[in-house]
Amino acid sequence: MTGFTEDELVQAVRTILGGAAPGVLLGPGDDAALVEPGAHVGVLTADLLIEGVHFERASIAARDLGHKSLTVNVSDVAAMGGSPRYGLVSLGVPPDVELSWLVELFGGIRDAAQDYGMSVVGGDTSRAECIVVSVAVTGEVAAAGAVTRAGARPGDRVVVTGALGAAAGGVRLAREGDRAALTSDWGRALIAAADRPSARVGEGQTLAGAGASAMIDISDGLARDLGRVCAESHVGAAVRLADVPVAEALRPFGAAFGVEPLQLALGGGEDYELLACLPPERVEDARAALRERFDTALTDVGAVRASPGMVAVAADGSERPLEPSGWDHFAA
Amino acid sequence: MTGFTEDELVQAVRTILGGAAPGVLLGPGDDAALVEPGAHVGVLTADLLIEGVHFERASIAARDLGHKSLTVNVSDVAAMGGSPRYGLVSLGVPPDVELSWLVELFGGIRDAAQDYGMSVVGGDTSRAECIVVSVAVTGEVAAAGAVTRAGARPGDRVVVTGALGAAAGGVRLAREGDRAALTSDWGRALIAAADRPSARVGEGQTLAGAGASAMIDISDGLARDLGRVCAESHVGAAVRLADVPVAEALRPFGAAFGVEPLQLALGGGEDYELLACLPPERVEDARAALRERFDTALTDVGAVRASPGMVAVAADGSERPLEPSGWDHFAA
Repeated sequence: MTGFTEDELVQAVRTILGGAAPGVLLGPGDDAALVEPGAHVGVLTADLLIEGVHFERASIAARDLGHKSLTVNVSDVAAMGGSPRYGLVSLGVPPDVELSWLVELFGGIRDAAQDYGMSVVGGDTSRAECIVVSVAVTGEVAAAGAVTRAGARPGDRVVVTGALGAAAGGVRLAREGDRAALTSDWGRALIAAADRPSARVGEGQTLAGAGASAMIDISDGLARDLGRVCAESHVGAAVRLADVPVAEALRPFGAAFGVEPLQLALGGGEDYELLACLPPERVEDARAALRERFDTALTDVGAVRASPGMVAVAADGSERPLEPSGWDHFAA
Repeated sequence: MTGFTEDELVQAVRTILGGAAPGVLLGPGDDAALVEPGAHVGVLTADLLIEGVHFERASIAARDLGHKSLTVNVSDVAAMGGSPRYGLVSLGVPPDVELSWLVELFGGIRDAAQDYGMSVVGGDTSRAECIVVSVAVTGEVAAAGAVTRAGARPGDRVVVTGALGAAAGGVRLAREGDRAALTSDWGRALIAAADRPSARVGEGQTLAGAGASAMIDISDGLARDLGRVCAESHVGAAVRLADVPVAEALRPFGAAFGVEPLQLALGGGEDYELLACLPPERVEDARAALRERFDTALTDVGAVRASPGMVAVAADGSERPLEPSGWDHFAA
């Protein structure tokens, strides 16, 4: 990171991110950004990506890391039923990082901003011992449409978008995979799931519109994140194991690495799919809408119960406790 | 950092920061926070504090660090003439940090939120190798009242709030001072300036209302930050050295450490005073208003010129180039 100053970096970032954008009155480069007042309820969220904890520099492309740093925040906005509007990106940069790497990182951030119809309007840069990518995103949601974790009611169905576990498989594959596995079709699919996830913005709005009583994005695994919904809603839940949508690419991966795909689908994090609770009579319409509008699957995996605790229901109907074996940054 | 999980930390933070707050529809703990729509133009800013770069864990109290992490952001909002509303705090925490330290940190964040009439509504936590405190703040400003760095006009006066250089003196004193210096009245004043600065929110609004053509907070030193205003406004400036308001406590410090106080006032960072450009006929009213409302000094230190470049004007009227000898995180 020798050879350029903070002001030069700020100028490079302004060039990459610059240009007029809807609602942005003043973009990066001043003390703060200025944006038009929002007509709806504001949605605010922030997420931190730290080298050595959330990613390894050698195993993720800077462009993917940039894209993902926005995606993980946008996913939180999506889980409220909202639309992202503006992003702030703060970067900690070790001395051995090249300007070209930072340009790629901001290229990925710009790509994500375009994908999600939002603008990055500011942030901060600093030296650091390891790479720190700290992003905050603001968005909007119609007051009637905002969905928290706290509204699940007994009898609601538990539904999830897409398929689960691929990102966790990709993380393990990146660490342990050989060349053959990494270059296989299923290997590429798993790595892409880990490095370049997509936030389900339209799906979140559709589920909110369909009457979702609670919603969360699956960042720490189905079991742990469903547990959070149960805790906030003061309910329990039953998950039918046979119905959990396991990512296809986990089958060959599981065979090669001796891993049970269902375990990754239940406990693996970073899928950024959405989990919602829906009144039973709304599930079919929501499923049809997600398929038609976004080509995204919606799977009914269980039900909300009045009694606390989560249970896993086997194919034969037997029940056992469902442990929140998701990923905890601190307990590790 | 053993002994507690991420969910437990989130719960502790919710307890410290929790409670109803104006405009907050949903505070920390869900995927994202929900806030009432703003009536005015939105102000967005973010700042990163990293252990070993911006602070040393051993030499700043956790409570001061928490307070300062909001202050540096609020100062950016103040420099636009705005009012802070909501904060997002993302924390990277090494394994050897105790929960009690984090409770103090969040206590300081809460204190600052109260001082500035704002609410912390969310954020993120993660393990890290060093302490990372990443804060984003949103605020509001009347569209007509927003002041950027880009509006300075030749003939405007250059004014600064308060006194300069104390924070830079405090940083050096913390590193090199002996017990006698650290416990002297001037030593305590310098340390407090570095560890517990205040953002000039009311002053910024008053200067905006007085017709400031450009404004910036002095985070990297008078010379460097004035240089930024000149660059964005495509103007130059002349600073009368004899009129630069040097912090009183720097005189004994300068004598003891062989440092020229004026150098710290010109080049030292982190004072979080405001620098504004004002039409000459507005200076007296602005000065009176700041004194009456906030007991804050406003000093005329020079003038904006049409010709590019910054000059320092000595007492005898001679001029020499004013170097932007502020603090650059990267050039070091």
